[in-house]
Amino acid sequence: MKLYDSKVAPNPRRTRIFLAEKGIEVPTEQVDMMKMEHRTPAYTAINPLQRMPSLVLDDGTVITESLAICRYFEALQPAPPLFGVGAKESALVEMWSRRVENNFFATVAAVFRHLHPAMKELEVPQVPAWAEANKPRVTQFLELLDGELAKREFIAGDHFSVADITALCTVDFMKPARLAVPEGAANVKRWHAAVSARPSAKA
Amino acid sequence: MKLYDSKVAPNPRRTRIFLAEKGIEVPTEQVDMMKMEHRTPAYTAINPLQRMPSLVLDDGTVITESLAICRYFEALQPAPPLFGVGAKESALVEMWSRRVENNFFATVAAVFRHLHPAMKELEVPQVPAWAEANKPRVTQFLELLDGELAKREFIAGDHFSVADITALCTVDFMKPARLAVPEGAANVKRWHAAVSARPSAKA
Repeated sequence: MKLYDSKVAPNPRRTRIFLAEKGIEVPTEQVDMMKMEHRTPAYTAINPLQRMPSLVLDDGTVITESLAICRYFEALQPAPPLFGVGAKESALVEMWSRRVENNFFATVAAVFRHLHPAMKELEVPQVPAWAEANKPRVTQFLELLDGELAKREFIAGDHFSVADITALCTVDFMKPARLAVPEGAANVKRWHAAVSARPSAKA
Repeated sequence: MKLYDSKVAPNPRRTRIFLAEKGIEVPTEQVDMMKMEHRTPAYTAINPLQRMPSLVLDDGTVITESLAICRYFEALQPAPPLFGVGAKESALVEMWSRRVENNFFATVAAVFRHLHPAMKELEVPQVPAWAEANKPRVTQFLELLDGELAKREFIAGDHFSVADITALCTVDFMKPARLAVPEGAANVKRWHAAVSARPSAKA
């Protein structure tokens, strides 16, 4: 088994944090996205979509998409559960995971990819107007999240889950996107400090 | 239990097809998105993100996001399995489900939302340059998918899955987005005819 990982991007970090929470170690190969190594013929043969990360199993099966890789390991080693337990809790984790991805991760990524000078060769064409359209959506979602985190410890409930992992990676992704958590979002800040203090956050 | 559904949008259709494949009937209330009913205070109290569909359980729990609702029903009634069986197959279904969502559903949606005159009041601001940037990505993904469907019957393997449901809804969403499946994509056309012929496609 081998995990193709990249230290600079938020998606591979989601998988690394997940594995750290599980205490699972996987042989890893770094792919330098700033050197376009994810667009070489060698990596394209692994993932034709040229996205990171990818997991190659011993039988040659390739699993891509951060959370698909996470689900694979959740099935192999259910403890500690990071996708919820039981029909209702699992559905709420999935709901919050997707809300965070679609309304927060995707909007911050749009700002970063369509405004940052370092993305000029990776995001073609950059559409600055699309980045600008997303800026208020980032703030709106953080305001919603702040209200939710006033009611509970973690994003999807009383347990740490993949929704927290994605949200943590997104808050940290706001820095290169030149965005900031609103001053008044005290619950988001409390939650972010708590999840950042977990050993897995260093992964 | 009540499902808030909307006949005009592709996301609620994903959940309806899923339920039809499972043979599950749920009491449903229609929310007319063209009349902005998903933005009323009543619906916003159910889903503050104003997205469709939403499922309200008898204990008042609200589950939003089409595939979170699908996962809820998969856990309640596993047969027929639509998210795969076992660690590896489930991961591959999740991988293809996400590939279809991120590279096909999202790109077609961008074209529709940012170019179609009917979306002027729903997508503010419309960014036509973002729609144009997505058009070639739709074609690129369909070319990839065509090569994959040369090798197997369904998108994620030999069984119909949620990846097929999302892809079916996306191909049908191409019509209002004024996009067409490339003439040469014979495997995509064969697959689309087959999944469209399933009784669930009428849901």
